[in-house]
Amino acid sequence: MRPLHLLLLILGLLPAVASALARAPLRFPGPRARPQRGVVVGAEEAVRGYDYETRYFRQRLDHFSFLEEEEGFFQQRYLVGRGGGWAGAGGPIFFYCGNEGDIAWFAANSGLVWEAGPRFAALVHRYYGESMPFGSKDKAYNNSKSLAYLTAEQAIADYAVLLTDLKKNLSSEGSPVVLFGGSYGGMLAAWMRLKYPHIAVGALASSAPILQFEDIVPSTIFYDLVSNDFKRESLSCFQTIKDSWKALDAQGNGQDGLLKLSKTFHLCQTIKNTGELSDWLSSAYSYLAMVDYPMPSDFLMPLPGNPIKELCRKIDNQPDGTTILERIYAGVNIYYNYTGTVDCFDLNDDPHGMGGWDWQACTEMVMPMSYSEDSMFPAYKFDYTSYEKDCINSFGVRPRPQWITTEFGGHNISLVLERFGSNIIFFNGLLDPWSGGGVLKNISESVVAIIAPLGAHHIDLRPASKEDPDWLVRLRESELDIISGWLSDYYGARRRGVLFQRAAPIPWTLLHHT
Amino acid sequence: MRPLHLLLLILGLLPAVASALARAPLRFPGPRARPQRGVVVGAEEAVRGYDYETRYFRQRLDHFSFLEEEEGFFQQRYLVGRGGGWAGAGGPIFFYCGNEGDIAWFAANSGLVWEAGPRFAALVHRYYGESMPFGSKDKAYNNSKSLAYLTAEQAIADYAVLLTDLKKNLSSEGSPVVLFGGSYGGMLAAWMRLKYPHIAVGALASSAPILQFEDIVPSTIFYDLVSNDFKRESLSCFQTIKDSWKALDAQGNGQDGLLKLSKTFHLCQTIKNTGELSDWLSSAYSYLAMVDYPMPSDFLMPLPGNPIKELCRKIDNQPDGTTILERIYAGVNIYYNYTGTVDCFDLNDDPHGMGGWDWQACTEMVMPMSYSEDSMFPAYKFDYTSYEKDCINSFGVRPRPQWITTEFGGHNISLVLERFGSNIIFFNGLLDPWSGGGVLKNISESVVAIIAPLGAHHIDLRPASKEDPDWLVRLRESELDIISGWLSDYYGARRRGVLFQRAAPIPWTLLHHT
Repeated sequence: MRPLHLLLLILGLLPAVASALARAPLRFPGPRARPQRGVVVGAEEAVRGYDYETRYFRQRLDHFSFLEEEEGFFQQRYLVGRGGGWAGAGGPIFFYCGNEGDIAWFAANSGLVWEAGPRFAALVHRYYGESMPFGSKDKAYNNSKSLAYLTAEQAIADYAVLLTDLKKNLSSEGSPVVLFGGSYGGMLAAWMRLKYPHIAVGALASSAPILQFEDIVPSTIFYDLVSNDFKRESLSCFQTIKDSWKALDAQGNGQDGLLKLSKTFHLCQTIKNTGELSDWLSSAYSYLAMVDYPMPSDFLMPLPGNPIKELCRKIDNQPDGTTILERIYAGVNIYYNYTGTVDCFDLNDDPHGMGGWDWQACTEMVMPMSYSEDSMFPAYKFDYTSYEKDCINSFGVRPRPQWITTEFGGHNISLVLERFGSNIIFFNGLLDPWSGGGVLKNISESVVAIIAPLGAHHIDLRPASKEDPDWLVRLRESELDIISGWLSDYYGARRRGVLFQRAAPIPWTLLHHT
Repeated sequence: MRPLHLLLLILGLLPAVASALARAPLRFPGPRARPQRGVVVGAEEAVRGYDYETRYFRQRLDHFSFLEEEEGFFQQRYLVGRGGGWAGAGGPIFFYCGNEGDIAWFAANSGLVWEAGPRFAALVHRYYGESMPFGSKDKAYNNSKSLAYLTAEQAIADYAVLLTDLKKNLSSEGSPVVLFGGSYGGMLAAWMRLKYPHIAVGALASSAPILQFEDIVPSTIFYDLVSNDFKRESLSCFQTIKDSWKALDAQGNGQDGLLKLSKTFHLCQTIKNTGELSDWLSSAYSYLAMVDYPMPSDFLMPLPGNPIKELCRKIDNQPDGTTILERIYAGVNIYYNYTGTVDCFDLNDDPHGMGGWDWQACTEMVMPMSYSEDSMFPAYKFDYTSYEKDCINSFGVRPRPQWITTEFGGHNISLVLERFGSNIIFFNGLLDPWSGGGVLKNISESVVAIIAPLGAHHIDLRPASKEDPDWLVRLRESELDIISGWLSDYYGARRRGVLFQRAAPIPWTLLHHT
């Protein structure tokens, strides 16, 4: 079994995301996306509290060449907050860098920004939600030619163009823009601050694994961190999971093995190989590690607080004589069936096999993933050759595994950003397996790392709730304090006239001429 | 008459450029490029002193989308110095950001880099010289579809990809890269340092008018500076030129006017309208202002030192009774016929009407140009509507006049770069009309402006010669001193381990959890 190239699971963190996820499979080819059966809470409920206007922007399909003048545009949806309190022309603009998912998910997902921002705008990432080139998702996702413009570079250029236009229309060219983003969106926020410092004064990049490329961090780190989250709760739970893969293979290879496995796990259909089931299981473990929040949440699935602790309690506390696989089944129900409403699990419910992230993973977003010997997964070493082959088979496209680091950097990031770049917060929760690819140390005075040892995937961006632990409340305050500092600096510089003209005389004049 | 949208005349500054220029017209549609008749000195002569290897790199046509896996590459030519003295793996790499022109022009043009650099590499800009997509210039320049990838963004991505590959092949990933470029190439060097700080540690951007977009500087500034260069030498010369346009129109509109004009100016063919002639004249004045070097030079044309002074001497010192137009003709011979070998001038010798710069000016590089009332040119206000119309007629493409500032910035550049960015030298000579769009003031400790009041277009990049004035010698020393400082900083940081890992502990940890 090879590891799931999950991810950049853009954790929305609020109800109603199950449906969005079902629409946007999150994993790399090979392992298909899991069906997400659970109670779907209406997205409208979740965003009712925020008052915004939905607008559309005529966006250019390809910012970097000059093809297709006639057909090279699409309607890109974005939200602009209507809430009171915006300072008016010149006031700050908080901008959420959209990732995948529909607009309701977005709005729900960005609680911190809604709650903190005097002015809010969020742009949907191209090719997701309703922001579809070529008029429809079917056409946009038709083939590699139509998908060609689904890239991070085009996405941040979208933000740049939209923000420039937005500020002009608001007669507010002097407004400082602060970028927010989580997970893939957090990477976009950080990269945009680096590439377009003239458009945004700073970025909060939450749980952004910008170092998860090439060999910058060990390819085993993600699943090692997943494993640690389980080991931390219960060594026996960790060991049961680690032993389960062999048990699963043994049963699968026996007489009527696949049928028996399918019954043990209450699957709606008999699996064709054990890999289908093991993917489904490891997917649950990985998602759980990402959403291992201390309070109940309802993102992918309705979950209790500390869901890994709950899962391990189930695995550990079965009666004597319960088999390994029965324990695993009991545990994984915490993730796939916490509400107890699922009759059987359908592993093949994958309405969108050609999901946007699959394409991105097959082009730019090549994140090598291995299972180490010490993890709770069966050892596997990332094999680029087979990865590439899958991509060519799936999309007819050859990945460019060095491109992201060429375009955005990543190697020796401390040295680069210490001298260059400013005003970026990299938040990471150490329970989040994506923290392994995150920036975990301060790089300079204004490129800072904020760490929450007990935080999971971009927990800081979640809307505030009464159940938030103290540290989370203070963490958000600290982030907003830093951001306030950026804004003060900006307005201070503006007042001093730095914005328009430096007062200093020409500095280096050669006066002695022949 | 409307102003010539000359330019980004990529001044090569050495012999043999006349032929290159004749191949690459430098101006915006409408006014056609002037034929450059003069003595063509062999390029090989000029570069004989530099020992380099010519290599080819399989370059991607479109870095920003994933189309055309099969046909999406071309052979890009570059030079690598073979001279002794390179420090070997880890040693600095000096990189010349290529603009237009053939490779001999390049090599000749980059004297400073050759002479100062322990290691030298130069990349030809795509679509110029021999670095042609689609196999040939005819195919590459065929239409807007084939030209679509001739952009500044693609060009600097070329550099990024090539440099990454080059360092890997040299087993020299730790090598600091310093970028050099002049004029358009200087813009590319500055922009590349801003967009790819992880690839290059600094940039010398010589005579790079990165502010010549939108309304950042007055659209009249270029031709005001041209005019000042003439006024500075001789007020009567300036006035004669200023009066000549009316005289030219008057004669042109009279009986057999065009024939008479063509005779006065020794044209090979009779002009069809006075605009052809006035374009030819104003083109000479503008080029002269750019190459108004204190020593003889042989760039566009073989010229004496201080050529504007020489031209004005001709205009001013004609016998009494010489008409204005005869004076103008005598003067302009300094530029077009200093060697005295031209029998007649051919204004329509334009073998490449669809030149690369014309395309770039019709897409991204929209630099508004007006003639002010106080200039020596007839007043004209930049009219974007007609500019756009010309582009649609010429290429079927609509310019994006706001794109460069959206992509690279330009507005409020001091504020942006004060906090963001480091290690850029902006050199400008104040005689150079492009200095009007340059960065003329220090922005921060390491983003500095160097001004030569008596310097012309990227005079600092010229190969050293015995005729160089003292100030030029010291200017180059100062630039190289600053660059040495960047390299020392880089190696110092590397030694201290900043490059790989910061010694500081996790800075901002939230220890108190519930």
